[in-house]
Amino acid sequence: VVPVPTTLAPPAPIINKSFEERAKLATNPMASKLFNLMSTKKTNLAVAADLTDKQQLLDLAESIGSEICVLKTHVDIIDNYDEEFIKSLKSIAIKHNFLIFEDRKFADIGNTVKYQFENGVYKISKWADMVTVHGVAGSSIIDGFKSGLKENGSGLLLLAQMSSKGSMCVGDYTTQIIEMANNNKEEVMGLICQERLPSMTDALVLMTPGVQFNSTGDAMGQQYNTPEYIIKEKNTDVIIVGRGIYQNNDPKSVANKYRTAAWETYKSKF
Amino acid sequence: VVPVPTTLAPPAPIINKSFEERAKLATNPMASKLFNLMSTKKTNLAVAADLTDKQQLLDLAESIGSEICVLKTHVDIIDNYDEEFIKSLKSIAIKHNFLIFEDRKFADIGNTVKYQFENGVYKISKWADMVTVHGVAGSSIIDGFKSGLKENGSGLLLLAQMSSKGSMCVGDYTTQIIEMANNNKEEVMGLICQERLPSMTDALVLMTPGVQFNSTGDAMGQQYNTPEYIIKEKNTDVIIVGRGIYQNNDPKSVANKYRTAAWETYKSKF
Repeated sequence: VVPVPTTLAPPAPIINKSFEERAKLATNPMASKLFNLMSTKKTNLAVAADLTDKQQLLDLAESIGSEICVLKTHVDIIDNYDEEFIKSLKSIAIKHNFLIFEDRKFADIGNTVKYQFENGVYKISKWADMVTVHGVAGSSIIDGFKSGLKENGSGLLLLAQMSSKGSMCVGDYTTQIIEMANNNKEEVMGLICQERLPSMTDALVLMTPGVQFNSTGDAMGQQYNTPEYIIKEKNTDVIIVGRGIYQNNDPKSVANKYRTAAWETYKSKF
Repeated sequence: VVPVPTTLAPPAPIINKSFEERAKLATNPMASKLFNLMSTKKTNLAVAADLTDKQQLLDLAESIGSEICVLKTHVDIIDNYDEEFIKSLKSIAIKHNFLIFEDRKFADIGNTVKYQFENGVYKISKWADMVTVHGVAGSSIIDGFKSGLKENGSGLLLLAQMSSKGSMCVGDYTTQIIEMANNNKEEVMGLICQERLPSMTDALVLMTPGVQFNSTGDAMGQQYNTPEYIIKEKNTDVIIVGRGIYQNNDPKSVANKYRTAAWETYKSKF
């Protein structure tokens, strides 16, 4: 018997759905909330506030709050962190209608990340709307978050790809992370990635760091792309801009430029 | 021309060198210090002190200090953490002659881990003798530690393998991490792994978590092996025991049992 030659199906054409439509497809409550927030506030800009002084961080949040959908923090680099800081940040977030993303990059076994998420000085589960998780320990890491996520209806962002040079989040690793996201739809709200891949569903928010108008990298392996390139060519949802905004003398005005570039590019896809 | 058949060289026989000899081969100062400490104190037991109360942790350290070479902490799970805690822990470490291993599992880009290591509430670079690092972001992560490591002559432990179910630190990933260690000899003191592989040099300390006398796992994917199996069959250097000791009613006495099992197995290899 001569086997019938198999023909590979052509890749499905990318048909973009609006954030509003995707809010209804989301399976994690925070993903739905973020899609709706982006849609009504008309911004898909996230800012990485990598500052070591709490007052500087609060000032930045107050200044750019009107421009952003998400503020990304590393609370563990703030020298003068205290509980008042979280209260102040929360009230700025409510006032300007943005979500708080603690970029913790949890990467331990389930039993440990449970304590790291819920306990300690930071008690991240009590205030973060979303946190990043490396899948490197295996999918059982997600079990460590289940109780903590319920406290706030928050969501996990899995690291499918990274912006740094020589990142090992590539190829099969990336494929397995996407599978992990698809297998944990209630807990996982989205992916940190550099491009949309066919296996990434419309239920997930795709967020991309390493974005700047004018820069090619830093001295420690960071690499940059422009907002237009990421949203149009790489077809992800949210740009994360750090040094391009917080190191600028006029963060509000430059944030507005990033916001406009990212939002207009998003709208141009329809 | 008929090609000459190539024959694969047989794997090199494993010839173990003593910790004393390896102290001289180590290229990172903390690796050398740890090899010497194990050799003179006659213990290759590390204890993972995963407790959320600082006084309980200090009591455990005081109680088992005489039995161990290393105390492994997660400072970010301690609810009542303060600077006094670090001072007390340091003085217990000096009294009982053990090293402090903060198991932070750094996993961000170089620019961020620099701040996470040196800044924030914990200022880990000021007191930790060693810290864990995931290579997932690429080898440029190591650049982020260079200034901080010099403060104390401390060392990095790269995660080459993990003890949790479905871990993605396997195969090529593991190979690349070992390469990363071999390419950064001054900064990297050792590997967290489940077995000695031929490419792991004698300059590196090999530490293995997931060790218990009697247990097969937990509800969140952790898997266990016995001390004898790890030190003899898997041929690593240091066992890391957590719940098997700190959840025991008599931690000092059970720590002594783990210490004896691990040390006698080590000695039996010569």
